[in-house]
Amino acid sequence: MNHTTVGVIGAGRIGKMHTENLVHAIPGARVKAVASPHVDEVWAQAHGIAVCGTANDVIFDDPEIEAVVITAPSGLHAELISQAAAAGKHIFCEKPVAFETGPIEEVLDAVNAAGVQLQVGFNRRFDPGLQKMDALVSGGGIGEIQTIRVTNRDPQAPPIDFVKRSGGLFFDFTIHDLDTVRFLSHSEIVEVYATGAVLIDPEIGVAGDIDTAVLTLRLASGALAVIDNSRQAAYGYDQRFEVFGSKGNVVVDNTRATTMGSSTTAGVVVENTYDSFVTRYREAFVAEVADFLRCVREGDTVTVGAADALEAVRAAGAARQSMQENRPIRLDGMTGGAGGGATR
Amino acid sequence: MNHTTVGVIGAGRIGKMHTENLVHAIPGARVKAVASPHVDEVWAQAHGIAVCGTANDVIFDDPEIEAVVITAPSGLHAELISQAAAAGKHIFCEKPVAFETGPIEEVLDAVNAAGVQLQVGFNRRFDPGLQKMDALVSGGGIGEIQTIRVTNRDPQAPPIDFVKRSGGLFFDFTIHDLDTVRFLSHSEIVEVYATGAVLIDPEIGVAGDIDTAVLTLRLASGALAVIDNSRQAAYGYDQRFEVFGSKGNVVVDNTRATTMGSSTTAGVVVENTYDSFVTRYREAFVAEVADFLRCVREGDTVTVGAADALEAVRAAGAARQSMQENRPIRLDGMTGGAGGGATR
Amino acid sequence: MNHTTVGVIGAGRIGKMHTENLVHAIPGARVKAVASPHVDEVWAQAHGIAVCGTANDVIFDDPEIEAVVITAPSGLHAELISQAAAAGKHIFCEKPVAFETGPIEEVLDAVNAAGVQLQVGFNRRFDPGLQKMDALVSGGGIGEIQTIRVTNRDPQAPPIDFVKRSGGLFFDFTIHDLDTVRFLSHSEIVEVYATGAVLIDPEIGVAGDIDTAVLTLRLASGALAVIDNSRQAAYGYDQRFEVFGSKGNVVVDNTRATTMGSSTTAGVVVENTYDSFVTRYREAFVAEVADFLRCVREGDTVTVGAADALEAVRAAGAARQSMQENRPIRLDGMTGGAGGGATR
Amino acid sequence: MNHTTVGVIGAGRIGKMHTENLVHAIPGARVKAVASPHVDEVWAQAHGIAVCGTANDVIFDDPEIEAVVITAPSGLHAELISQAAAAGKHIFCEKPVAFETGPIEEVLDAVNAAGVQLQVGFNRRFDPGLQKMDALVSGGGIGEIQTIRVTNRDPQAPPIDFVKRSGGLFFDFTIHDLDTVRFLSHSEIVEVYATGAVLIDPEIGVAGDIDTAVLTLRLASGALAVIDNSRQAAYGYDQRFEVFGSKGNVVVDNTRATTMGSSTTAGVVVENTYDSFVTRYREAFVAEVADFLRCVREGDTVTVGAADALEAVRAAGAARQSMQENRPIRLDGMTGGAGGGATR
Repeated sequence: MNHTTVGVIGAGRIGKMHTENLVHAIPGARVKAVASPHVDEVWAQAHGIAVCGTANDVIFDDPEIEAVVITAPSGLHAELISQAAAAGKHIFCEKPVAFETGPIEEVLDAVNAAGVQLQVGFNRRFDPGLQKMDALVSGGGIGEIQTIRVTNRDPQAPPIDFVKRSGGLFFDFTIHDLDTVRFLSHSEIVEVYATGAVLIDPEIGVAGDIDTAVLTLRLASGALAVIDNSRQAAYGYDQRFEVFGSKGNVVVDNTRATTMGSSTTAGVVVENTYDSFVTRYREAFVAEVADFLRCVREGDTVTVGAADALEAVRAAGAARQSMQENRPIRLDGMTGGAGGGATR
Repeated sequence: MNHTTVGVIGAGRIGKMHTENLVHAIPGARVKAVASPHVDEVWAQAHGIAVCGTANDVIFDDPEIEAVVITAPSGLHAELISQAAAAGKHIFCEKPVAFETGPIEEVLDAVNAAGVQLQVGFNRRFDPGLQKMDALVSGGGIGEIQTIRVTNRDPQAPPIDFVKRSGGLFFDFTIHDLDTVRFLSHSEIVEVYATGAVLIDPEIGVAGDIDTAVLTLRLASGALAVIDNSRQAAYGYDQRFEVFGSKGNVVVDNTRATTMGSSTTAGVVVENTYDSFVTRYREAFVAEVADFLRCVREGDTVTVGAADALEAVRAAGAARQSMQENRPIRLDGMTGGAGGGATR
Repeated sequence: MNHTTVGVIGAGRIGKMHTENLVHAIPGARVKAVASPHVDEVWAQAHGIAVCGTANDVIFDDPEIEAVVITAPSGLHAELISQAAAAGKHIFCEKPVAFETGPIEEVLDAVNAAGVQLQVGFNRRFDPGLQKMDALVSGGGIGEIQTIRVTNRDPQAPPIDFVKRSGGLFFDFTIHDLDTVRFLSHSEIVEVYATGAVLIDPEIGVAGDIDTAVLTLRLASGALAVIDNSRQAAYGYDQRFEVFGSKGNVVVDNTRATTMGSSTTAGVVVENTYDSFVTRYREAFVAEVADFLRCVREGDTVTVGAADALEAVRAAGAARQSMQENRPIRLDGMTGGAGGGATR
Repeated sequence: MNHTTVGVIGAGRIGKMHTENLVHAIPGARVKAVASPHVDEVWAQAHGIAVCGTANDVIFDDPEIEAVVITAPSGLHAELISQAAAAGKHIFCEKPVAFETGPIEEVLDAVNAAGVQLQVGFNRRFDPGLQKMDALVSGGGIGEIQTIRVTNRDPQAPPIDFVKRSGGLFFDFTIHDLDTVRFLSHSEIVEVYATGAVLIDPEIGVAGDIDTAVLTLRLASGALAVIDNSRQAAYGYDQRFEVFGSKGNVVVDNTRATTMGSSTTAGVVVENTYDSFVTRYREAFVAEVADFLRCVREGDTVTVGAADALEAVRAAGAARQSMQENRPIRLDGMTGGAGGGATR
């Protein structure tokens, strides 16, 4: 197998995860360089990274590097993508590309002009459960789709500092669910009604955001979808999906580390779901980058690109406007919203 | 134990079910008379019913009969309640009392004036699973309620003739879910946003109704609730409930007749949920009438009365208006809607 | 429907249960008389029993009574069956008929001579789950049977006084499992190896019995079966069954009163299985007597008769001998054992 | 982290799996050499193995190599361990060490004399589910152990050629269950009763082996254990475990690749368990070698060594004798049996 040489921009929690996946779990990948203002040399050496730099040029200027994985802070994503495209690199970028449609469209132009590929980190599309669900639904196993349900709850509300620069719940968190609905339905979101509340931490409200939300979506196909979100589920990272159709339904339930269960006078107890997206979607994080590199190598088109980022941001923008104006919002002409602006 | 003597008005499917429950499964009950235009004498005799009549006077004029169970067609409920109250009988009446708030308020006055009790047939409140769920939630087991989810799907779309006189999906079907949210939350619905579609049978649309719906509710407590409905689930009568709070969640999942499961090359197969509300809520149908008679005997106030019927109808009315106008509707001043009027 | 008139002998816990089932849950049955040395008149009256007597003659001498249900102490079963047969009554008798093969064979002769039917109370054969399991297996759904597993654990060890007169674990408790293996396999037990221990209560050992056991059975078909028993499971009445064959397996798992489950930081908790055979096998207790009366009415042969009692006792006898001699015992010539004799 | 340099002997299916785990999934490991008569150079190069040889000397003679992983054919295990010990290497060896106690005792002496560590590949001890189960049981969560149940069924009967040289079902397959009982009970097996049958493939019988078995074990603690085995379960690799004690039970059920479930008119279908031990115990295979290297590095004693192999072989030998003589066999003085000898 020929190796694809990769550079990773950003070496925070997610950057390190992607790097370790590339080094240990993705055959055919070679991480040559990591660029980060605060790179951890000991960690890099332990994983055999030859080049560490504080500037991204160590990656952009290296002709041997074919592909970059961008995990820098969200606010830098769009610019970094454009730079990487200009340098002729194929690009995997963590979501969000941007919080508004304008910058995403510019990115899309830059990438097309450069003739490189851009894959966006909607990792759930590569989850084994959701992949099988999609295969079953696409194969007609449940007939025509009528309703889709997504429950997405984080195990713990993020720090207020993060909330302030997160783009708000819809752009930071719900955006995965909006993409999941598009992925599972093979249809487009045409209208959004979003309701939100601050029920977990009043500070989140002070920061202009919400911590609890319910969204109703109308799809182009005529189907309905419903998303419920919470920033904090005491029992862990709650990820449940259902597609209901004319011939039946299909669900993907929470996953657990083991199947152990114990019965005592206290009842039957099984262990909780995972407590973070890193452990819950471990396989998906590996598979999305592996598939990106496969597409790069084989010249295939990546399965989730900038157009998908664009649609998700438009839906998130509609959700924000819906909540602010307390009415359903159609996606026609929706352009997202101001980055980091208030949800409420 | 002293027996409570009961008369049953109506002897259709539900009337026979309540009668047989009273005769066989509810200690302390005695069914003396059944009144129905089309009474089945052989059935009545087999269950030891002494008196059968086509006119309700056989019940209203019998001083020995203390309580009536009304299962006549919905359009007659309000009038029959008023007559029964005038005759001094305690009343158990199947839902709906009426499709508008006016008649329900009149009924409430009549019942109060007569000093009799009126229990409404929101049977789910007596389901063992929902009872335990309420006990756990009320006891603080999941902390403060943040989100409630109800999935309610019928196994088979009703005949179009029924659809036409049903009052529409929200008044005929969703009304149970609206009451369930009130029951589980111990709070009031203050705003409703409802979306609907005709995805199962175009004839339902022609009849002015919908067959698929998603509702978002805001509660006085600040919590959110979401209901999804379908008139037809290929796999059976789908009844799932979740209350999510600050300390965790509690679900009541579908029930099944047996725990049998078989593993072959085709996967692991377990049997579907029940295929009708009669079998799914068998225990609840017994328990609700048993509790009604207990309240009558012991002078307790019934747990689900005309005021609950009123609130559910107001919420159903808000749902209908919300869907027609495609905007959220507050319940302030909501008076339900015209009986049998179009949902769309 | 013509009614079958029934007399019940014995009015302890099980006698009352069968009586109430006959009165309330079995259409076509009429309980005319109950005979018991300690009959509860208030209870009898509440359930509309016309005749109560301390002597069984009130039943045997009443020509209107066609069938008797025997729930007297085990030691009297065989004699009561013979008397009932002589009186021309059809007989439903709780297990065990006797602890030895001799008396069972005499009973079988008496019943055959009188031309009446005798059904034995192996209630599990009428459990909805085991019925469906048998239908699936008999229909070839799992291919040829290779292994059968039965787990049977009581929620609480019985009082020592009961242990002493119970016939021992194999005759009192395991006998249900031995019959279940015969029922599910449609084959005969040819060899038994039984191991036992006293792990719960040393007093059970002092009384000459065991409280924990594992049995391996060889069946005539060549299949193997394994039974594990305990007199005390802290979490309730544990009833699990598996049939494994060449095309797959089928299990019947524990049943629960509700499907409620709650997730908190303590994990996911669902409620325990039932805590008594009366609640776990409620439907089976009704169905077995209903089917007995149906056979009486329609002239069908009962599905579980004295020959089944005989085989189960032979297997229990083999188990006792196996444990005492610590070697496998073949059933050829096995005649059960002394009633109330020591297991160890 | 300092790296431990490893050599792998054998490059068949299991050898490649361990090698890839060492290269990609076990931090701190470096595979320098692989020795195998049929080494796959392309594969070795792809995984960065510097040295490939057909003779084991490339490993034994290399002073840089501290530890060896032995995955050669079973018949060579004992000799290879002795050679590796003489060369001063720490040793991880796949089970079985040998089929008789004599060679295992010799190996034990050799290892002790050389002052190196020997870990045996009873991988299940490192399964996350069984690890949690052991922690719960050891912590007293279910009280005193009374009964242990292990179900172990392969997805497909092995080729007859393998059967002939496998040592027989008890030595090749059941041996994992015997070790699991020891692991979970923290007690010793003192007596075995084993029953077997040929129900899957008559050729297995012709080869002198069985394909279906049930074993009853008595433990030194007084607890009982039961194992049921099959060489072929149509639905996959069936791995279920239960420990039952005075305060309750704990189970580890089958694991599945996803939580997807679909409900249609055919019932509710979820996917089968894994179809091979490689996928089912993927995490355990990584963890056992990682822990071996950790012990080597930190000077800890390995958790499963030659003494455990010895006990498992003694129990397998007792099982074989038990089945041949159809009587329970005590382990006192048991020395295993002839390698490759007939089970029947």
